[in-house]
Order: sequence, then structure tokens, then C-alpha cells
Amino acid sequence: MNVDAADKLKHRKGIVKIRLTKKDGSPIKDTEITVSQVKHKFLFGCGAFDSLPLANDELGENDKAKIEERFEKFFDIFNYATIPFYWGRFEPEKGKPDTNRLKKASEWLVSKGCLVKGHPLCWHTVTAPWLLDMSNEDILKAQLERINREVSDFKGLVDIWDVINEVVIMPIFDKYDNGITRICKELGRIRLVKEVFNEAKKANPEAILIINDFNTSISYEILIEGCLEAGIPIDAIGIQSHMHQGYWGVEKTLEVLERFSHFNIPLHFTENTLLSGHLMPPEIEDLNDYQIRDWPSTPDGEERQAMEIVQHYKTLFSHPMVESITWWNFCDENAWLGAPAGLLRRDNSCKPSYYELKKLIKDEWWTHPTRLVTSNTGEFEFTGFLGEYELVIDNIKLHFNLDKNSTLIEITV
Amino acid sequence: MNVDAADKLKHRKGIVKIRLTKKDGSPIKDTEITVSQVKHKFLFGCGAFDSLPLANDELGENDKAKIEERFEKFFDIFNYATIPFYWGRFEPEKGKPDTNRLKKASEWLVSKGCLVKGHPLCWHTVTAPWLLDMSNEDILKAQLERINREVSDFKGLVDIWDVINEVVIMPIFDKYDNGITRICKELGRIRLVKEVFNEAKKANPEAILIINDFNTSISYEILIEGCLEAGIPIDAIGIQSHMHQGYWGVEKTLEVLERFSHFNIPLHFTENTLLSGHLMPPEIEDLNDYQIRDWPSTPDGEERQAMEIVQHYKTLFSHPMVESITWWNFCDENAWLGAPAGLLRRDNSCKPSYYELKKLIKDEWWTHPTRLVTSNTGEFEFTGFLGEYELVIDNIKLHFNLDKNSTLIEITV
Repeated sequence: MNVDAADKLKHRKGIVKIRLTKKDGSPIKDTEITVSQVKHKFLFGCGAFDSLPLANDELGENDKAKIEERFEKFFDIFNYATIPFYWGRFEPEKGKPDTNRLKKASEWLVSKGCLVKGHPLCWHTVTAPWLLDMSNEDILKAQLERINREVSDFKGLVDIWDVINEVVIMPIFDKYDNGITRICKELGRIRLVKEVFNEAKKANPEAILIINDFNTSISYEILIEGCLEAGIPIDAIGIQSHMHQGYWGVEKTLEVLERFSHFNIPLHFTENTLLSGHLMPPEIEDLNDYQIRDWPSTPDGEERQAMEIVQHYKTLFSHPMVESITWWNFCDENAWLGAPAGLLRRDNSCKPSYYELKKLIKDEWWTHPTRLVTSNTGEFEFTGFLGEYELVIDNIKLHFNLDKNSTLIEITV
Repeated sequence: MNVDAADKLKHRKGIVKIRLTKKDGSPIKDTEITVSQVKHKFLFGCGAFDSLPLANDELGENDKAKIEERFEKFFDIFNYATIPFYWGRFEPEKGKPDTNRLKKASEWLVSKGCLVKGHPLCWHTVTAPWLLDMSNEDILKAQLERINREVSDFKGLVDIWDVINEVVIMPIFDKYDNGITRICKELGRIRLVKEVFNEAKKANPEAILIINDFNTSISYEILIEGCLEAGIPIDAIGIQSHMHQGYWGVEKTLEVLERFSHFNIPLHFTENTLLSGHLMPPEIEDLNDYQIRDWPSTPDGEERQAMEIVQHYKTLFSHPMVESITWWNFCDENAWLGAPAGLLRRDNSCKPSYYELKKLIKDEWWTHPTRLVTSNTGEFEFTGFLGEYELVIDNIKLHFNLDKNSTLIEITV
């Protein structure tokens, strides 16, 4: 594999020299070895809400088999999973958080090789209804305590968090009264962001803390600028792209990338949706307002979805600031709004989009097993996509990480 | 005059007790006095660009007479004047600023009882063309030096400044290359705002420093929040309302007032336009793109303009956070875009809007001469619109200020 200057994916690859020595210090020379990629550094993620009933053994036999089969396909391509911490569902009754169930789900996902992200810690939607009975001062206190509790409880298990969701609209959200809109209106957006990020940072200084929004306008840009000027420790900018009303297209995607990359902070595409059925009408402003009985996946729609997903992932993966892409609904079953938003149909069969995505992640962007021979100093040079690798020498298996900064790795066999 | 709780203008009025004593300390009792308002505290302003050729004696006899007559009508209603500091015109050649001409104009306007505002210190439009030859570092340096120079040179004469204009669009303005867009893109909006405000503050700590924009969206709101969180000393939020495409109406105006008043910083309506001719088509995005040969003032248009100006000023004057309203073009002659935007026609005759505005400012919202008799302790109580007053007692004229905080004023005659 080559990395030349014209390579559009050179930011995704690394070159490293590896030196193999025996325990006595002598080089393992002129020896054949095999190097295989086992994991991407890039975070290819997906919503994994189904892990909750599965990992907690809450399913009947049939359902269990179905969800297990689904996750086999999930783990075939994804190394990153988003699980739900919506406050209103996580702690519907004050003081009784769903910590144990979420822990089991996280542990299971981690055991399958995934990094796990918690979504979200602060949001005005699906928030705890009992906040409505409290004063603003107490709501803020409860919000910060909840952040401290979750981030602390899951430390080492969930170290990536969507700390706050949809702040641009938060203080002016007027569909219904809720505690979070109330405190955001009183404090202002930036002060609330500061409070929740500082609390999360305190609870887990190593965590990756994300601000997330569906608003990709100049307002979100200016909000981020304001947050950064206020010294808020934002580790990644989250951008939702639920494209129920149609694929953005390359041009708009590049324009969004251009505008949000100038902060020099990694970009996470946190919630990606492309449909394999008819599109939502353009006049719908809040996607939640479109409620229909049946929203089928169609053959034409599946072809379109497959084509668009390839285009979309290629555009994002080509951009150096993008660090993760999370597909939102893995399967049409239980998909948000009942939309045909999955890579799998309701019966678990794979749509073309699944195969296309797998081809990208595990073939085109994957470093396939490579046989090499060490030099007479025991060295070999290796180029590949960034990530985790297995090195096989004389039936001994070793692991190493290929990172952008790797230059020389010395391995004693 | 009464100020009751239901009075929609009670925030514009003050109640004060005045005690009149003779030099020997004895009260001036049972004496008739007359109190008359001589000036509004509220800033009723207008663009006064014509003051430059007039005050600098650059006009032929006819033009001079015409402009003088125009300014008589101007001073009849306005106590606040905006003069142009567009960098590209103020200093077309580097090192040769137009300071003297602007000083003469300011001095003349001040001598006529006006407060003078300088507009603007930093803007990407009509900026100095010679910035294009400089590095970004040097552009910023030149911008700050220019701010320091103007704010220092005009201290005591011009103590109100539109420090920065149209920051929301500034870094993405793409109609033509210019030095200010370049540095705003590099620094970011908030850092540039911080630099220019800090420089202006340093040069004149007493000045009123305004951020000004035509963008009244959530983006401007978030920008202001970001600036305030970054500690930028913004004294007033400037809101442009060039309504060439039609009057906003009361509802939109109230909505804008609501959104921008929660910062608890005074609002200045800095650039108000309502037309007395046909409206600009709604599809025009940048008003500057609408260039027509002839844009007449019409009888119907003049009636509409008069009705709308009353509605608009009433809406703004009723809101406690509004501190100033500046009409943009006093006369159709030389009006921006050639629009019939003036209160006067090209021949200096007054449109109905002029009379209506005068009625509001100098009649409905004006405290007319009042005759009162002092008590046996030499006191009288007085209620009126906030501003400057003349008190006449035995042909002696005295002045006092009626402010919101006034409670007791003692005057020795």
C-alpha cells in the first residue's frame, strides 16, 4: 500500500518501521510475517439501543435470536456504539436511575470490541418530567448531579459523551414546557454549555466531550465560537445529519465540513440517516411532526440509499477533521419515526446499503493481510489504514497500533 | 401629567420634587414658575451626512441655502446625529484621514444641541482599499490604530460609536475581497469584536460603544451572548431596520425586541428606513443589488410611510430597553439606493411622515410648558418626559435634568 501526496485518504494512513528482535536482543531477520488489520482507528459507529434488552436478558427466545443475529452483522462493520441516556427514560422516577441495565449493555458492547458513547447528558427533549416541579436553581443542580453521576459511574466503560444536544434551539424550544429549556433561557446558551461541560470534565477528565446539534447554520458556528472563547472544553463538534428529506449531496456536505473544520476540533457525524423509501415532504420543519402508519422500504429506495451512503461516507472519510461517523438506525425495526432508515430490513435481511458500507469499511478502507519478510536487521516497513493490527510470526500472534505518529515500533518476540 | 402604573410610557417619565431657595437659604414660596422641556433624554436621531459640506463651507450659494433649510427642519425634531466614518472615504489614502472636516461637522452639530455618533469604526464594506496590500497582522494593526486615532481625536465631541458593523456576515462576505473580511475570517468574529471594542474603550473609557447589525436572527443573538461571555464591553446593541421591502409590522418588531432585550443592555435602533414609494421586490437578498434609475415618492406611498412611521416609533418608544431610534435618510436627495426613504422630498418639502414624527416627538411625547406655584416651603412636584428642562421664575431662566433617578432637586436662585 502506498501513501502518496495525491492520495485523498493519506490522512487515514500511517507508515511505520517495525523492528522485531528476539529476547536475547538479536534481530529476527529474513523471516516471513503476516500483518492484518483488526480494527479501525476511525470510529465507524451506529446506534445500539437494542443492546439493552439483549444484554439484560429481557427477550423471549425468538426475539433474542433475532437481535443476536442483528448484532453479528453490526459487529461485522462497526467499532463504535451509541447507547441511550435520555434522562426521562433513564430516570423516569427521581432517584431511580437505570444505571445497571446501561452498564450491562455497555459491558457487552465493550466485550465485542466497541467503544461506547452515551447520548445525551443534557437535552430539552425526553428529559425528566419531574424537573417541572422544581425551581430553576434546583433543575440546574439536578442536571449537574446527574452528569456527575453518569459520567462517574460509567468511567472506563463509556468515555465518550454527547454532553449537550441541540443547544441552538434549546432556549426557544416551544413545543412544550420542560425543565431544560427553562434553565437554558435563564442562563443563556453558553453558560449552560459551560456548566454541563465543566461538570462532565470534572467527573472524567479523560472523556471525549461532544457538543451536538442538528442545526448546521451559522448560528451553531457562532455558538461554538462563543463556547470556545469562553474556555469550554469541547473535544469534538457533533453534527447530526438526519436526511429524511433527502441526501444533502456532496456540495452541501463539503460546505458544512469547511465551515465547521476551521475550529481545528475533530468533527463527529453523530446521527446519520438516509432512507430506503419515500422521502419526507420538504415542508415539514420538525421531523417529529411527520407521523405515518406505514413507511415501507422499496427496491428503488434501497438502490438510492446504497448509492447515497457510499457518496456520503466517502465525502466524510476524505475530510481530515472527521473522526467518526455514526449511522443512526441499524435496522428498520424500531427506527426513529418508523422510517426505512436502517441498513437492515425489519426481517434482518441486509439492504444493499449494508453491503456497500461493509465494502467500504472492511475492504476499500481496510488493510488486508499482507505477507512481508524482515530485513537482515529484523526490520520491515509497513503502510496501512490507521488502527489496530495483528502480526503473525511463526504462529505467534502479536498486536500493534498504527497511529499517525508512529515512526518506529520495536517488538520483542 | 400623570404617571400611573398602566401608563405604557411610564419608563419614559420621571417625577421629581424641586425646592427653590434664595441665596440666604429661605424658601421661594407661593411663587408662580413655568417649566418647559427643552430636550429629550431619549435619542431621536437621524443620519446627518450633509453636515460635512455645509459645516466645511464647501457648497455654492443655492446648495448652501437648501441644506441650511433642511437642517432647520432636522433640528426641529432630532437631538442626535450620525456622521460617516467609513474608512475607505475617511482615509482613501493611507495617512491622510479626513479628521478636520469631520471635526467641523461634529462641532457644528454639537453647537446645534445634538449628540453625535460616529459610524462605523470597523466594517468590511467601504473599507480602506489599501488594506488589500497588507498582511493580516498589519491589517489588524492598522484597524486598531485607526480606532485609537478616531476615538481619541473626537473625544468630547463624538462619544458614541458604532464600533463594529455587520459582524454576522463579516467573515463569510463574498461579494469582493477586502481586508476586514480577511482578518475576521482568521481571528473569528468574537476575537475581532473583542480587539476593536477593547481598543475603543482604551481610547475613550466614557464612550458608548455599539455593536451593530442588520441581521436580527438567532445568529446575532448568539454572537452577542458569546461577546458578553468573553467580557467585551458592549454598551448598546445596535439593530438596523432598513425596511425597503416593507414594514416589519408590530408583531415582528415586538419579537425582535423580546429576543434582544433579555441581555439587559440598551437597544439602539440605528438605521431605520420606511419608504414613501414602491417597495423593493422581496426576492432581492442584498438590498444593494436593487439599482433602478428612478424611485419616486408617491402620494399613496407617503400616506403609508406616515402611518408606518407612527406605528414603528410607538412600538419602539414603548419598550423600556430602547434608548435611541435613528432615522437613516432625512431627505430623498442623496438617499441610500436612491430610494424615497426621506422624511423630506428632494425639494425639501416635508412629507406627511415628517409631520407625524414631529407630532410624536415634540407634542405627544413632549412635556409642554407648565405653570406651577411653589408651596410655602418653596417646593413643587413635577412629572414629565425625561430630559432637559427650563424653569422660569421672575424672568430668570434655570435648567435642570429630569432623570429616572431624580427625587429631590434643590435650586438656589
